Parts: sequence; C-alpha cells; structure tokens
Amino acid sequence: MSLGEFDLIKRFFQRARPQPGIDVGIGDDCAVWTPTPGRQMLVSSDMLVEGRHFLATVAPERLGHKALAVNLSDLAACGATPRGFTLALALPRADAAWLERFAAGLFALADAHDIPLIGGDTTAGPLNLCITVFGEAPRGQALLRSGATAGDDVYVSGQVGDARLALEVFRGALSLPGDEFERVRSAMEVPQPRVALGQALRGIASSAIDISDGLIGDLGHVLARSEVGCTLEVDALPRSSIMSVQRLAVQHLCTLSGGDDYELLFTAPVSARAAVESAARAADTPVARIGRIEERAGLRLVDAVGKAVPATFDSFDHFKTPHA
Amino acid sequence: MSLGEFDLIKRFFQRARPQPGIDVGIGDDCAVWTPTPGRQMLVSSDMLVEGRHFLATVAPERLGHKALAVNLSDLAACGATPRGFTLALALPRADAAWLERFAAGLFALADAHDIPLIGGDTTAGPLNLCITVFGEAPRGQALLRSGATAGDDVYVSGQVGDARLALEVFRGALSLPGDEFERVRSAMEVPQPRVALGQALRGIASSAIDISDGLIGDLGHVLARSEVGCTLEVDALPRSSIMSVQRLAVQHLCTLSGGDDYELLFTAPVSARAAVESAARAADTPVARIGRIEERAGLRLVDAVGKAVPATFDSFDHFKTPHA
Repeated sequence: MSLGEFDLIKRFFQRARPQPGIDVGIGDDCAVWTPTPGRQMLVSSDMLVEGRHFLATVAPERLGHKALAVNLSDLAACGATPRGFTLALALPRADAAWLERFAAGLFALADAHDIPLIGGDTTAGPLNLCITVFGEAPRGQALLRSGATAGDDVYVSGQVGDARLALEVFRGALSLPGDEFERVRSAMEVPQPRVALGQALRGIASSAIDISDGLIGDLGHVLARSEVGCTLEVDALPRSSIMSVQRLAVQHLCTLSGGDDYELLFTAPVSARAAVESAARAADTPVARIGRIEERAGLRLVDAVGKAVPATFDSFDHFKTPHA
Repeated sequence: MSLGEFDLIKRFFQRARPQPGIDVGIGDDCAVWTPTPGRQMLVSSDMLVEGRHFLATVAPERLGHKALAVNLSDLAACGATPRGFTLALALPRADAAWLERFAAGLFALADAHDIPLIGGDTTAGPLNLCITVFGEAPRGQALLRSGATAGDDVYVSGQVGDARLALEVFRGALSLPGDEFERVRSAMEVPQPRVALGQALRGIASSAIDISDGLIGDLGHVLARSEVGCTLEVDALPRSSIMSVQRLAVQHLCTLSGGDDYELLFTAPVSARAAVESAARAADTPVARIGRIEERAGLRLVDAVGKAVPATFDSFDHFKTPHA
C-alpha cells in the first residue's frame, strides 16, 4: 500500500483526544503552547538510527517506546516535568502495519507520562527517528551536570548493564538461557525513563545525568563539567541476578561501560541521604550509593574493601577477544 | 580522519560566543531557557534527507543554510520571533572539511537571525538532518492556517517557482543558460525564510502558511483549516524574469505546484491592505495580491480577466511527458 505524508500523519499520529496544555498541536506550521509562569523550558533531541541505536529485529512497539524513552530520560536527568514532544520520521516505505505498532508503543509511553505529540515531520528515506522533547522546571531548579562538589555521594538508580549484556548476546559474544535473554533484551529494548525520580530529586541532587553511553563515560561528563574527581566502588554497582553470575570481565564491561541503561547517575551532599531515600521511595525507584566525589581530578575504581580495581577503558576490549 | 561524537560537537557546533537568552546550552542533558513572560512558545521540526530534500551535489554551506531556513520558514509562517534551535545529524562519516563548511552555512543564517544552536545529537548513519526550532509570539497573536475568512485577500511574498525550475533542470526535463541556472539553483538551495515579514504581519494577516509543498497544496491546507474556498488569479503569481519566459505549462507547474519556495502565503481583510503594504515595506519583502477567499468551498483558478484556467493537479503531469 502507499500512504502520502498527510494521510500517514492523520492516520497514525494525529489523535482525537485533547492535548493537555497545548494551544495548537499537529496540523499547523508550528505547535503553540503557553509556558507555565515562573518555570524554565527544557529541551532535548535524540536521533535513532537502525543498526546503531536499535537492531532491525526490534518489535515496532518497542522501537516506538524506546525512541521516546531515551528522550524522556534526558528530561528526567534534568528533573524536568515533560510537556510534549515532536517526532520526525524517515521511513523506507509507508508500511501501515509497522506504523500502527510503532505508534502504539510510542503513545503508550506518552500516555503514561501524559504528554502529547505536538508536531513533527515524515519523509521517505533510510529509517531514522528524531524526537525532540520539551519539559519545564521551576526557575533555577533544573538538575545539571555541573553541580557536583567534593564530598558528595554518587548514586545510580535501578540496575545497570543488562542492556549491554543483551547486545553481547545479539553479537554472539556470549549466550544466555532463553528466559534470561528475554529479560535482558527487555532492558535494552524497553528502557524505563526515570522521570518521577528526576523530579523528586529537584532541590536534593547536586548534579545528574542519564546513562546512555555507559556509566563511566557519563560520570566523566559530570566530573568534567563539575571540575571534580571521583572514587567509584565497582562492587556497589547495582546489577541484576542475571548479571551477577557472569564472568567478572563481563560484569565490568556491562556495568561500567555498557551504555543504553537510561538510569540516572546523580550526586547529593552527605547531609541529603535521608532526602535521597525519601525521593527514591516517592518515585518508587531504587537507588544505590556507589561512590564519592573528590577534589582530586580523575576517576578511581575500587572494590568493596577500597582496593584499586585495575580496570581501564582499554581493558574492556579484552572482552572482545575470545581468549580474554 | 576519525572524529568521535563529542569531539565533533565540540569542534564544529559548540561556540564560544555567548548564547543570547539561553541559560544552559550545548553540553548538558537538556538545554534550559527562560520563556518571555506573556508570550507563547512555538516549535517546529523538519527532517531533510538526501535525494528527497536536497541533491548530493549541493554545497555543504548551502545545505547548512537550507536545513535551518526551512525550519525558520515555519516560524515565519506563524509570525514567531525565533529563539533557538536544536540539530540532530546522522552522518555516513565524520568528514571534517564537509562539517566545517556545513557549520559555516548553518551559523551564517543562525547569526543573521541571532539565534543560538542550543543542543542536539550526532550519530553515524545515512545522511539525515533534523532541526527543531523554537520561537515566541505574544499570546494569541501567532498566525495560524485556520483564520481565513470569506472576502479576505490572498497574498504571497517574493516570487514562486524558481526552485522547481532548477529541479527540472537537474532532472534533465529542460535546460537554461548557465547564469540563469545559477540563479534558479540559488532559489532552490539558498531559500530566504521570511521571518521579518511574518512578525510584521502579526495582528494584520488573518491566516498564513509557508510554501514548502507547492502553492496550491499549501493553500489547500489553509482552505481546509479555515473551512473556506478561494479564487486564485494565476497570472498574478509573482515570478522571476527567468520564469516568465518559460512555456506556460512550465510556469503553471512551477508556480502553482512547485514546492521548495519558502515564501509566505497569507490572507488579510480588504480593510488591511494599507497595513499589509506597510508590513511588507517594513520587512523589506515584496508581496503580491493573488486571489480572494470565498465562502464556497474549493479552489478556482482564473486568468487576468477572470476566465477559468482549466489546469488541474493532474494536468501538471503532462510536463513530465516529452510531448506535453
């Protein structure tokens, strides 16, 4: 079948239900809305490309979910309340069955966060999804990467590493029993953005970032922007029961530099420990204390008894060789 | 050479100059800014794909210009004042020479409109450019497609059709002398978004849209949203000296359904003629009166003496046959 651009938008993406807080939605040159007085506007944009951000095997519903989830994760990292999003979509062909499933996954997550699709674009082209999300936060309360201070605790939400474990199975580097594979595959394909936790941490966390490129890499951004260093307790990284029985090299690779976790990595003063716990409970999201911010630049990895873990970024490459 | 994502952003897209009106720009999970009190926020997103929105032969500077121009044109159509934009970029390879030229064209236009690049994304993948622009307008004053009323004049800015003429030369359907080809090629590759005109028309125009998909098609969106009809005087469509000596079938194809014009098509009450002229002068942008909005649904094309022009959408396909 062949669908024109306007048919396609109308059929799959223009919804009859009212769009909360949006004055003009899909169907004009621009979307129009009225910002909440006293709030700042936050925006983030992520582009997903087949083979790089998702595999051709992914179910369309899961792709729709993930495309929005990775963007909401950026709003979560800043403690923003989501307001809406745009979707630009390049498709090799207008496949109604695929689009229906994609839209179902997309809107299920959008509805869970009560945010409307307010505009966008569709075109023919190699499969490419670009979502831009908008959120709001009370003036001066957005969580930034730059606020970590020596002495702060370092936390991470949820569990890390399972998405990377799934990727390694897809790559054929290791294998898992079917049910375990499905669980880690869900971590990779259906990440849950920590939107409630991000908002709960406003006024408590001193800095935050979401883990999209691997915990160490993203922590590095916080350290650089905050001009501080960190000691990270490798054994304290929260991991699934599936992860915790893998070889240590695999655990290190996946938890430290796995990527695609979409958990929040954040810092808070020691005096805020009770407040962090309350925020985690309020957001129904587990958090774990995994390290300490220090004045001395650089990242130091230690085990549970404080002994240096000799892992470096390079050491993870061993994983890729059969004799590691 | 190989450039990582962060190097690439830092080297080509992160600028030292201050970002007017932006609290947090590139380098955090989200950009943060403070909306102007009493103003509404406007947003639009366009995705450009090689072979569909631009040809592989386009100079990188021109592509950088055009990617932003088509988005600014959407803000212009709503009468918005641009505030900033995000850029998501999928690149087959990180080619420094190409990126430098692309960024030069992009920022030349951004600087002309005094808007900062506030965030985005870069990834490997088939060439794809997705820009999202943000603007503001005083509450209730955004120009929409839905405001046209029977009796209103219909106007278009600048000249239409040259971009399509260039495309037909590229396609080999016709030929032009070298200097004429360069002129129409510039119309296609370096469109000038009518941002000043759009703002000048706030409070004057009753509806507006930018011409990206062809004058008749875009006018159709206005008629549909406004629930009105229109008589359009085909001979009144402003065209270049190059266009006006082409065969009539070519002129009709290019001016009526050409696309890629990025001129503003707008309506205004007859009582606002002097105000429209003033706005055009203030914005230093020519406008031409080309038709009249009517209660009766549908679009009627007439010549200078009011005689029906038998052109239909289908008739334009003749152009594509050698014996038309």
